[in-house]
This record gives sequence, C-alpha cells and structure tokens, in this order.
Amino acid sequence: MKPVVVRNVSRAEPALVEALGTCGVATVHEAQGRSGLMKTYMRPVWPGAAVAGSAVTVLAHPGDNWMLHVAIEQVKAGDMLVVAVTADNTDGMFGDLLATSLKARGGVGLVIDAGCRDVKDLQAMGFPVWSRAVSAKGTVKATPGSVNIPVVCAGVAINPGDVIVADDDGVVVVPRNDAAAVAAAAKARIANEEDKRRRLASGELGLDLYGMREPLAKAGLVYVDSLDDLAE
Amino acid sequence: MKPVVVRNVSRAEPALVEALGTCGVATVHEAQGRSGLMKTYMRPVWPGAAVAGSAVTVLAHPGDNWMLHVAIEQVKAGDMLVVAVTADNTDGMFGDLLATSLKARGGVGLVIDAGCRDVKDLQAMGFPVWSRAVSAKGTVKATPGSVNIPVVCAGVAINPGDVIVADDDGVVVVPRNDAAAVAAAAKARIANEEDKRRRLASGELGLDLYGMREPLAKAGLVYVDSLDDLAE
Amino acid sequence: MKPVVVRNVSRAEPALVEALGTCGVATVHEAQGRSGLMKTYMRPVWPGAAVAGSAVTVLAHPGDNWMLHVAIEQVKAGDMLVVAVTADNTDGMFGDLLATSLKARGGVGLVIDAGCRDVKDLQAMGFPVWSRAVSAKGTVKATPGSVNIPVVCAGVAINPGDVIVADDDGVVVVPRNDAAAVAAAAKARIANEEDKRRRLASGELGLDLYGMREPLAKAGLVYVDSLDDLAE
Amino acid sequence: MKPVVVRNVSRAEPALVEALGTCGVATVHEAQGRSGLMKTYMRPVWPGAAVAGSAVTVLAHPGDNWMLHVAIEQVKAGDMLVVAVTADNTDGMFGDLLATSLKARGGVGLVIDAGCRDVKDLQAMGFPVWSRAVSAKGTVKATPGSVNIPVVCAGVAINPGDVIVADDDGVVVVPRNDAAAVAAAAKARIANEEDKRRRLASGELGLDLYGMREPLAKAGLVYVDSLDDLAE
Amino acid sequence: MKPVVVRNVSRAEPALVEALGTCGVATVHEAQGRSGLMKTYMRPVWPGAAVAGSAVTVLAHPGDNWMLHVAIEQVKAGDMLVVAVTADNTDGMFGDLLATSLKARGGVGLVIDAGCRDVKDLQAMGFPVWSRAVSAKGTVKATPGSVNIPVVCAGVAINPGDVIVADDDGVVVVPRNDAAAVAAAAKARIANEEDKRRRLASGELGLDLYGMREPLAKAGLVYVDSLDDLAE
Amino acid sequence: MKPVVVRNVSRAEPALVEALGTCGVATVHEAQGRSGLMKTYMRPVWPGAAVAGSAVTVLAHPGDNWMLHVAIEQVKAGDMLVVAVTADNTDGMFGDLLATSLKARGGVGLVIDAGCRDVKDLQAMGFPVWSRAVSAKGTVKATPGSVNIPVVCAGVAINPGDVIVADDDGVVVVPRNDAAAVAAAAKARIANEEDKRRRLASGELGLDLYGMREPLAKAGLVYVDSLDDLAE
Repeated sequence: MKPVVVRNVSRAEPALVEALGTCGVATVHEAQGRSGLMKTYMRPVWPGAAVAGSAVTVLAHPGDNWMLHVAIEQVKAGDMLVVAVTADNTDGMFGDLLATSLKARGGVGLVIDAGCRDVKDLQAMGFPVWSRAVSAKGTVKATPGSVNIPVVCAGVAINPGDVIVADDDGVVVVPRNDAAAVAAAAKARIANEEDKRRRLASGELGLDLYGMREPLAKAGLVYVDSLDDLAE
Repeated sequence: MKPVVVRNVSRAEPALVEALGTCGVATVHEAQGRSGLMKTYMRPVWPGAAVAGSAVTVLAHPGDNWMLHVAIEQVKAGDMLVVAVTADNTDGMFGDLLATSLKARGGVGLVIDAGCRDVKDLQAMGFPVWSRAVSAKGTVKATPGSVNIPVVCAGVAINPGDVIVADDDGVVVVPRNDAAAVAAAAKARIANEEDKRRRLASGELGLDLYGMREPLAKAGLVYVDSLDDLAE
Repeated sequence: MKPVVVRNVSRAEPALVEALGTCGVATVHEAQGRSGLMKTYMRPVWPGAAVAGSAVTVLAHPGDNWMLHVAIEQVKAGDMLVVAVTADNTDGMFGDLLATSLKARGGVGLVIDAGCRDVKDLQAMGFPVWSRAVSAKGTVKATPGSVNIPVVCAGVAINPGDVIVADDDGVVVVPRNDAAAVAAAAKARIANEEDKRRRLASGELGLDLYGMREPLAKAGLVYVDSLDDLAE
Repeated sequence: MKPVVVRNVSRAEPALVEALGTCGVATVHEAQGRSGLMKTYMRPVWPGAAVAGSAVTVLAHPGDNWMLHVAIEQVKAGDMLVVAVTADNTDGMFGDLLATSLKARGGVGLVIDAGCRDVKDLQAMGFPVWSRAVSAKGTVKATPGSVNIPVVCAGVAINPGDVIVADDDGVVVVPRNDAAAVAAAAKARIANEEDKRRRLASGELGLDLYGMREPLAKAGLVYVDSLDDLAE
Repeated sequence: MKPVVVRNVSRAEPALVEALGTCGVATVHEAQGRSGLMKTYMRPVWPGAAVAGSAVTVLAHPGDNWMLHVAIEQVKAGDMLVVAVTADNTDGMFGDLLATSLKARGGVGLVIDAGCRDVKDLQAMGFPVWSRAVSAKGTVKATPGSVNIPVVCAGVAINPGDVIVADDDGVVVVPRNDAAAVAAAAKARIANEEDKRRRLASGELGLDLYGMREPLAKAGLVYVDSLDDLAE
Repeated sequence: MKPVVVRNVSRAEPALVEALGTCGVATVHEAQGRSGLMKTYMRPVWPGAAVAGSAVTVLAHPGDNWMLHVAIEQVKAGDMLVVAVTADNTDGMFGDLLATSLKARGGVGLVIDAGCRDVKDLQAMGFPVWSRAVSAKGTVKATPGSVNIPVVCAGVAINPGDVIVADDDGVVVVPRNDAAAVAAAAKARIANEEDKRRRLASGELGLDLYGMREPLAKAGLVYVDSLDDLAE
C-alpha cells in the first residue's frame, strides 16, 4: 500500500468519549455486545492507568517509529494514538520524548501493538500507554507507513476517529457511530448492576437472582451428595 | 462427562489451612517434596495478594462462566474457588459482581485457569485472584460443567477439599490428607532457615554451610585462574 | 564442556559502572549503537528496581541451582550475577537465602534466564532481580556448570566483567572495554535530549525538530484530505 | 452484536480468483503492497495444500462450532469459509463431517483461527485447511454468532466476498475490489522475476542486479579485511 | 515426593486397547464426553503415526532422562511410556537408543511432555512418538523420579494402566475402568456417522440433518439480505 | 554498531565439515559436551533436510533483508548463511530468488532467526533452510547491518567460519577450532553406540548395560509392588 496521511477525521463528541471512559473497559465491552476488545497481551505499562480518547491510527513497520512523529502532527486535543505494525514486533517505538511531544499537542494516551520504553518517566508524567511489551530496543526511521487509515491492532479493526477506552482490564474500541448508543447502554448497565451488587453482597445467590436453576436443570446439571452416587 | 455438582466435600482443619498460608508458597512447595506447584503463568491480578483456603473445584467450558454461579452455592467460609477450563482460554470469567457474591458466602479467593476482569475493583475489595490472564472479555452462560469433581488446573491435579496456598510466588496445592504433615514440615523448614539466613548474612558461604565443596569436586568441577589455563 | 570456575576476571572502573547506571537502559542501549539488549521477557520481579554492576557469569543446568552457590564465592563488591541456563527453564533457582548470601558478599543484583522466588522478601530487602519468570519451583543440586565463562543470556553474548545495566525498561550489556566510550556517549545523549525535550514540550513537532519532512516526501509519503482522495 | 446471517454477498470473478491462486501467496502479498497477510501461526494442516476462493466469513464463539453449519448453507461453488473466533481458542471446530458437507456444497477450503481435527481424513479427501492448531477437542452448539459480516481473522480484516489465497507460505486476503489490479500486478511480478532468476542462477549478484552498492555505501556500510581493521 | 517405582499395574484388555486405537483420537475423545485430551502442543514427531497402548507413567525432572531407563524395565508388550516432567522443559530426553530398548521390551510408543531427538531414525523404525518439541539437547542422569504413579501430562491426569490413543489429531487418555464403555460408545458413534456422512455428501445440510433451524431461531439468529437491512 | 562487512574469514577443513555433517546434530551436540545447540524453535522448512557448512554470519534488522544480498557476495563453496536479527521477527526474509543466488555462489544452506517463504520452491530445489517461522511477509531494504561479525542466533554465539550442522533434530554450532576434536569424538561416539544398540535391541536393559542400579538405589529410588505399600 502507498504510504499516506489522511488529514481530516471525524471524531465522536467529547462528552461521549468522556462518558465511555467513566464506564470502563469491561462495562463498555459488554454494553456493545462483547465486541471490540483487543487481545489480552495489550497491558498498561504502569498500573492504574485509565483513559478514553479518539483514535488517530498509525500503520508502522517493525522496528521503525518514523510514522509516530508524522502522526503527532495530526493529533487534536483528546486524541489517542493507536499504532498497528505490519508484523509482530516488540521494539520500543515510543518513549518519553515522543510522549512529551504527544502530550504537548493534546494527546491523552497511546495504544501500540509493539514495545514501549522509559516506563518510569511515563509513569512520572502520568502519560498512559498500553503495549504488547516493554522494550528499550531503539528503532530506525527508514520506511514510511500511514496515518489515519483503517488498521487492525491487537486483533481489532479500527477506523480513525473511533473511540478507545483503556484501563487495567485492557483496551476496547467503540466505532465512532456507535458511541452514543454504547454510552447509553453502558450507563444503563451500571445502574442495573448496583442493585445486583447489593443483593449479592447480602448473600443472595446468582442462581436465584438470575433465575438459573431451571435452565441448568434443563441443560442436564445434576446434584449428588458424593461422586460415588453418580456411578450408582 | 455428565455435568454434576457434588455437595459434600471433606476439608482440612482451618488451623492447618491457616498454618500453611503463613508458611507461604515457596516453603510449602519445598516441604511437600517439590510437588503441587501450578504453572508459572498463574499470577496474582494485583501485587501482594496472599491467601490460603480449601478448594471448591469447578470445571468450566471456554468462554462460559455459568458454573461459577453454581459453585458459589457450594462455598463455605474459608473456601477458594479453583476453576479449570476444558480448553486453553483467557476470557474474563470472573469480575467484581461474582467476587461480591463469593465473598458474601465466605469465599476467600479465586484461582482460575482463564481470565479475570475488574482488576481495580478486586484490589479495592482486597479480594485475591490468581489467573492466566486479565481480560474484560465477557462470557456466555450456555453449557453446564461440574463442581467439586477432580480437575487439572494449570498443570496440577486437584481434588475438592485440597488446600490451596497462593501468594506472589504462585499457587501450590496440598492434598487434604497431607495437610498436617506438610504444615509440620514447612514450619520445621522455616525454623531451620532462620539459622542459615543469619550465617549467610554474616558472609559465610553456602559452599561451606552446606558442605558442597567435596561433592562439587567429585562431580568434576575445577577451578582455574583464567580460561586460558584450561587449554593447557 | 568441562565444568569450570574462572577466578580472575577484569572489571570496569566502578565510576564507569555507576555512570552507566545513572544513564539507564534505554539511553545506554542507544548510546552503544542499539546493541546488547536482552530479550523483552527479562523483567524486574518488583517494579522500580534499577542497578548497574559487573557481570559474574554462571552457566547452569535446567532445574539445578548448584552453581549459584559456587558463583557467590567469586563475587566482589559491585558485582551482579548473570545466570544462563543450558535449556529454556523457569524453575525458581534464586530466593531470599541466596539473596542474603549474595548481598553479604557485595553483590548488587541478579539477572537470570530462568525463574526467581520469594519476590516479597526480595522487594523488602531492596534486592533487584530480573528474570524470565517468577516461580516457587525448587531445584536440585546435582550437575555442575561453570562460572565466569562467556555465556549467552536472553539472547545476548556476555563475557565475565562486562557491565550490566538494568531497570524497568529491561537489561543491557556493555562490553567491559567499551564502558568508557559508551558512558561518554550516553552522557552526551542525555545532554542533547534536554533541549529536544524542552522544544517538544513547547509544541514544536519532531517533524520539524528532526528535519523529517523532506526525507518523508522523498520516501513517497503523501498527504490527502480523505481516503477517497487517494483513489481519484 | 446481534447474531446475523447475511445472504447476499458479491464475489470476485472466478477467473480472477483462479489467477490469484496460480500466483501463490508470497507473490500476491508483494503485489498488493505487502498487506493482507495473516499471522504466521496459520499453517496448512497437511503439506502441499494450495487453493484460492471467495470468503464466506464466520464469527464464532470459542469452543462452539454451531455457526459453521449455518455458514455452509451460504456457500456457493468456489467459496472458502473464513472463521474468526471472539477469543483465542484452539478447539477442533472442523472435521471430516463438516468437510464432507462443505465440499458437497461447492466449498474449496477452510481458514480457521482455531483448531481442526481429522487431519488424516482431510488429507485423504484432498480438502485444504489452514488453522492455528490441530485439535481433537470437541465443541458445543450453544451460542449463535454471525455469517458474512466483516471479521478480523489472524490479524487481517476481511469482508465477505474478499479473495483468499492460501498455500505452504500462509494465507493472504485480497479485497474483492482490488482483485483485478492485484492479479495483474502479480502476473507482472512473476514475469519480471523470471529474468532475475535466470541471472541470479548464472552467478550474477543481487548487489549488481538491483544496483545496491551505491545506496549501501551511502547508508554507511563499510568493508574491511578483518574485524581488527575496524578498530584501527 | 520420594522417588518410587511401582511394579504391579492393572491394564485394560488388549482387545479394548486395540478397539480404541481403531476408532482414533477424535472419536474416542467425543465418545467419553469430550474429556481426556492432552494440550494441542503434543504433536507426532513424524506424520501419520497412530497407536494405542497401556500407560506406564514416568515422572522425570527437567533435563534428566534417568527414569526412562528405569521405566523400560516395567514395560510389558503393548505398553506406552507416558512421561511427565516436574517443570516445562524441551530437552531431548528420548532418542533412537531408548526407542530400540523400549521396542525390544514390547513398548509400542511414547508420549512425552518434553523433547525428542533422532526423528529420522524413529520414523525409519516406525516407532511413534508424541512430544512438545523436537530437540537434540542431551540430558543428565542425576536425579531419580518415579514410575507408575499418577501424573499430569500435557494437562491431563493419568493413572498407570490407563489407555492412551494417539494419532495425527493428538493424544487422548481413557481411564482403564472406562475402556469398555468408551470403546462401545466410540464404535456406536462411528456407525452413526456413516449415515450422516452419506447424507452430507449428497448435499443435505447439517442445519436440516441435525434439526438446528428452530433452536438457532430461538437463540436469536436472524437472516438478512444485506448488512444494511439490519440497521433499518 | 557501525555496519560492516568482513571479507576474510577462516574456515574449517572441508573434510571436517563433511565428517560432522555425517554424524548428525544429536551426536555432534553430545560429542562437544552438550553445547552449541540452537533453540528448539529453529525447524527445517521441509522435512528430511540435512546439511553441514561453514558459517557466513549476518546481522540484520527486523523486516529488512538487505544484508542477505550483501552476504551472498562473501559466500564460498560449502558455506551456509547464518542470519541473526536485532529483534524477534518472523518476516519472510528469504525466498526462492535469494536461494537461487546463494546456491549459484556455492552456498549449501541457510539458518535464519526469522521467517522464510517459497517453501515449495525451496523443497523442489533441494535447498535446505532452518527458520523460526514460515512467512510470506515481504521485507524492505532500508537499513544496513553487518556480515561476518560474531552474532547470537537462536540462543547460540557464533563466529564467522564456525561449522553449522543441521538436520531434522535442529541446528548445532561447532567452533571452528574445535571441529577436529569434535569430529573425532562424534565418530567414536557412533562406534560406541553400535554395540549398545545391538545389546538393547536384544532386550538387555539400559539399567544393566550402563550399571545404573546401584547409583539409583544410592540416590534413594525404591521399588514397591503397589502405591499402597509406600504408605505402610
């Protein structure tokens, strides 16, 4: 594919992005029908990180972080960089200098299907990063990739402008056009869970709360006093 | 195998479970002859977690957490859920609602050969979990498995009622009938290590403390001043 | 290979080791031309650990920590043990007793291409360890290996006396004879980065700061307003 | 997401599909600008398999092959099933009975980001399959997924009707609308390689054939007689 | 655990072992309710291997094949060695000399959760081996393990005398006491599949053959002509 | 490190290289004291491949095969290319065109710690390759590396001119200066194994042939008639 930078990207309303971020990854993932979750190897490089933003997508080559510099110019306040790589790679494409630059332009976080370095500095800056590896491995600037094209990052297809929500549970992608509906569903889910949490905390069983006893019996589940009873 | 829940399970004496927990995973593992240790991919979802309990075993299907609800009804104070899955899977089968329910019934922890979510909430609750992955991936409730049957979890065969000890070093399983002997051996080991620690801290070498010089020489170990001496 | 312990090893000047440690892994790795970095699976067993030292190398067999006891006798103040294993292995070869002994002899850290246990104790002692796994798995003392011979650890060839720098970003090896040159280059790099950091923080783009626009254009990168423009 | 089956799918011209298949995976991948290649863990379950077809896409749940039965009804002559799973899974979702059915409906192959069984039977039938694992692990039929929606399989985004080319080198996806251009580019590439192959076989160096000497020198490559010369 | 060799082991009837072998791994696994299948990393070292036998179990230490020599003395005609290791290890514990010895004593195959070497010789001998790796890595004979005790191999709990069935699809374990029932169920399954295969080959859909249309509709599956119809 | 090509390399006598190749990987590895074996992920891309040669070493960057073209000019009859990469990478750096060129210059094989493509063509040419992956992923020619410097490939340190032996069991490296001694030891080992093979084939046990009974008893191995005897 020809290397290209797309300048104009539609983004979701900031209020929607913020609302999704407040709900957290697990709830948002459920609220949009259990889709959009990145592979579990994508982990925060420092614990407790949590953020939401609009995706500026990057397609980079293994061991080459040239396009991250290019992408930062396209960043607007509230954006996150989402970096896909054309082959599995753990090189440390992003560190404290790029974080300084990205933050200065309004970027709020990074999701990268490769490595990240300067972990201690990033934590000190409070700049959140999710990556597949921590690596000090330096990179070259030799081969152009693309910015703001559709990419696949850690198993999920992402379009520029999609909403990214990331925390200790991982990273989930909400298509831009679904942001309002998913935010509403996520809020409803949280409201609904409050009552359940209270009842479960009081000792009520999920079996009763969710009415599972009958479907379990229909599905063939049996209760015995000991394993020996089963053989009789 | 037919899905089945076994109601009656013998457990070790609470005092033995507590004693094993106090000794910690590394000591207990050594004390029972270096057996019963789960694979190293089983890690605490938050650092510093440490607990011991009696196993309520669960056999679940990949991507299906129905049996965790079933298992919680069988939990007594001081129990831990130990969840095996019929195929390698990282889905987030357990989160804060199930933790709330499990804790309300007296459960003290979870060991799961799959994923866990709501890590931040679990840490806030102080509820300890060891898992192969952190994942927000939601699960279905479609296929029954079993509760309190013998299972293999992370490479170790476990019977319901066996003692589980888990901390930052991993997870070890003590067969229920061996609990007293292992607890005694573990305590003796700790007492024995105190003196060794003091002597090593003073600069005495393990080579001398353990009498290793002679067996090493018999095994063929030689000392030279430089690698070149070896070629002479 | 015959098991052998080499007694005499040349080490870099302590001031150089300290200087390299101050620069940190990412900077040192870049300063020596992006070489010497261990595989990314080598991680600190507790966060925040950072150290530099001279390598006392160990070649051990899987599941056998006999040579760690042998190696400690060869340790001088400021040394780190670097343990290679003859086959991939995650057994917990090192724990709090060995750390107590190693520390008492002046050892400042451990890098091991296998497992480590007693993580909580090591953190309490402030003793830094980088390993491929955390594992309580006990080991035997049956087969001698070697100390202070050239080894390959986590993908890097290391000679005894080489300088090891390790922190949250990983582990890098500096050949002893290159220590002075690399330390100088690393310091220069840090000085140089200060100005860049300031300019990036003020919003200047890396594209301009590094003069990337022209080479990117030469390499074929194009800018469009939307993806549709590309097809025209 | 709601489970859905999309009935109408546009496919590429059969002649284009056949032309792409003739060119093979490596050439097609290069011809479309090095994009569309699935992760390298996707391997043929028997050696020598090679095929091209139009994608009927499937999104299935881990351990559940219900949707493969659903998808076969949507297959037309020359189609291949491309199965994505909502979480990493190796269960044996496809075996000789499904292959018999798929073949009877005109299906020419299967690409599945999970497991496959009955390898010997599939080879005897000459039915080609690419999978991430071979596994006899049986599956349930409990949770509906979708057919003919956009999916991500082994790291590549695929739309129903895209062209799949698969052989010993892996699996590559060609977007339906690019099929003609890519087929033309692939054929041109093959023609072009013939001359190169002949010249290389005669002993001419790639350095000369491709004119690499000057750019290498510009990039800083130096030649020395021995490593010692470099230090001088 | 104390190292021990258990001399007397009950085995299943040879006719049952043979019957299970004839049915193959996938069918046997289904016939016993989808249990007993080893992890998918266990692969035949040469293609086409297929065998069934009674398990002589071995617990060995990583990098140490001493117990394989011990185990061969306990082998009777029709037995297979099943080797578990106390930690993940790929060393080549078994090669052509051990195969020669094992075969001479009536052994019919090997399943090993470690490495195997001399692949070409084993294929020439027609001696079947399933392993997690091929490796020429030599082993020591330093630490005794055990023979004919219960072990966990590649995720499955195995008792000495259990029936092992292995082919291109993997390795499945049938508890000795279940052998007759499983063999009967497996044969019935094969008979039943014959008719299904014939009907599927004629173009009948699994959807109709298995009556899936109604349960799929109940589970919420919908059919649309194009994805756009869904949004309406 | 500066990119450099070293022109002059000493090689072992062709007769020694051939002798080592005849002995095979497993025997050579044992004969040199169980050292020099590459990681087990290095596998032949087609079965049955076996070769020995002198190493022309290459250090390449991930996703960049420029240096393979450079290296071929340095190849003499009987050489093998040994390609290390500065970071883990699976890109298909080598295919049929490079194989044609390498073969034309006298090269007899390739060992690459990355990917390889055109597997079918390589097998048809009879050109042997060992790699960590098969991948059609194309590479760039952007960043120079080095040729004939010391490298670490798949866990083993290699100097240019060292002898490489590779077959179905993997890849082993013999330091050039050790070639004569290792070849002699390997031949002696083979002669010695002939008698052992004959005796084992006749049913004699390794326990007796190697005199293992006494050391096993000393190491604590006990024999019982059943597991119950142990508890008495």
